[in-house]
Amino acid sequence: MPAEFRIKRRIAFAETDMAGVLHFSNYFRLMEEVEHEFWRSLGLTVFDREREPNLSWPRVSVNCEYQAPLRFEDEVELHLVVNRVGSKAIEFSVEFWHGGKRCAIGKITAVCCITGRHGDFAATAIPEGIRKKLGG
Amino acid sequence: MPAEFRIKRRIAFAETDMAGVLHFSNYFRLMEEVEHEFWRSLGLTVFDREREPNLSWPRVSVNCEYQAPLRFEDEVELHLVVNRVGSKAIEFSVEFWHGGKRCAIGKITAVCCITGRHGDFAATAIPEGIRKKLGG
Amino acid sequence: MPAEFRIKRRIAFAETDMAGVLHFSNYFRLMEEVEHEFWRSLGLTVFDREREPNLSWPRVSVNCEYQAPLRFEDEVELHLVVNRVGSKAIEFSVEFWHGGKRCAIGKITAVCCITGRHGDFAATAIPEGIRKKLGG
Amino acid sequence: MPAEFRIKRRIAFAETDMAGVLHFSNYFRLMEEVEHEFWRSLGLTVFDREREPNLSWPRVSVNCEYQAPLRFEDEVELHLVVNRVGSKAIEFSVEFWHGGKRCAIGKITAVCCITGRHGDFAATAIPEGIRKKLGG
Repeated sequence: MPAEFRIKRRIAFAETDMAGVLHFSNYFRLMEEVEHEFWRSLGLTVFDREREPNLSWPRVSVNCEYQAPLRFEDEVELHLVVNRVGSKAIEFSVEFWHGGKRCAIGKITAVCCITGRHGDFAATAIPEGIRKKLGG
Repeated sequence: MPAEFRIKRRIAFAETDMAGVLHFSNYFRLMEEVEHEFWRSLGLTVFDREREPNLSWPRVSVNCEYQAPLRFEDEVELHLVVNRVGSKAIEFSVEFWHGGKRCAIGKITAVCCITGRHGDFAATAIPEGIRKKLGG
Repeated sequence: MPAEFRIKRRIAFAETDMAGVLHFSNYFRLMEEVEHEFWRSLGLTVFDREREPNLSWPRVSVNCEYQAPLRFEDEVELHLVVNRVGSKAIEFSVEFWHGGKRCAIGKITAVCCITGRHGDFAATAIPEGIRKKLGG
Repeated sequence: MPAEFRIKRRIAFAETDMAGVLHFSNYFRLMEEVEHEFWRSLGLTVFDREREPNLSWPRVSVNCEYQAPLRFEDEVELHLVVNRVGSKAIEFSVEFWHGGKRCAIGKITAVCCITGRHGDFAATAIPEGIRKKLGG
């Protein structure tokens, strides 16, 4: 059974644009927020400063379909589903629900990487302890 | 022949994240910047405050594939190609080039909408004068 | 007695920069978030789409002093104090607390304005119902 | 004579908010952009990945006064003046000019710090080569 996770998150003023709605780029920030909250719910952190070498999860592919706008102060339910945990990559989807309606759905594929000090990434196998918790 | 347009744009410090690279959500802001610069190069503006009713171009579908990271102060060439101008929608792609390498490619589909004061959108036909200039 | 209000807020990945900390500009977004949450706690909204004419609260003066960095996943307590409610303006401070330490303190002065469709502002007296609730 | 530096910078759509203007927090990002462009004009970079140990310039105090709004596509002249170069700190101001009018003025005080991998800062003397170029 795929791992699932939900949070509620209110749209902030600074996240809107002059068209009066949540700027389309900010949906990806919300997807990342529910992703990281999901990690914390598992007792994990996506960026463990203590771990040597550091791991991080650069994105290789993302998309989003928008069905209805979100506005300032809307409380959105973010519904994350882990679609796939591979040996090095994870793919998850996030649905945006508001007012009983799905307003958007996005997807992110990220790769587990050993990360150097200045954004140098080398793909690596997802550590077993993390894989298991993520539902892999 | 499809319309094309290129600009160079330097990555700002505030656009990076703690992994030392351009945050993946910011690629969509860069795509939007080259899109709007393209409009200006045609003598247009994507949001004409004088026009009644106001038009805007909410996104219905976007994606991005990331091949190599971009970092602070990298000067990126953004290469926009208009893939399709429909009766109400436009689709364009943006390639991100740096150091002789394509670092990412993204795509945005946007719909021409009459826009109310507070983010109320109703799809409408792209005005002929705009359509022609966009290459439709 | 001055009105006070507190929320906790976790630092998001996208809010950090390549130095590994919350970007200094984002402190102002957090100040605004606690401000707006304070309004909601009073049964108000800072931007009431139903009200005619629309009111908004452009900032005339802001500052922030930084004492210690905030990092990804830090849970910060934001402590808002209303310093002054004038006839047209409000001034409030926000302290940032983490790990038993005050990490920053900022201040915002905002003016109540009638707001046109495209960022046209005219200062106006704070409506009495709002003034009272804000502690004026 | 104090060092001065000017750039022009157009306001992007994603930098506006639902009030139709440049969000007040983004003025600080523009101040940082002209600051870093100033460094580059001197043949410097504010974050030299090759230098060991890494230096960075956390802000200790910032402020901004807003006189007139800035809007989408406005081309703003950012006028930086270095007010003071101390042994460890630098203070500079930035004026925002548009349409023959000063729309805002801000100030940033930053401290030269040795920077660890995860946002650990220790104040240090500004290297002489940098100090001289900055006008100290």
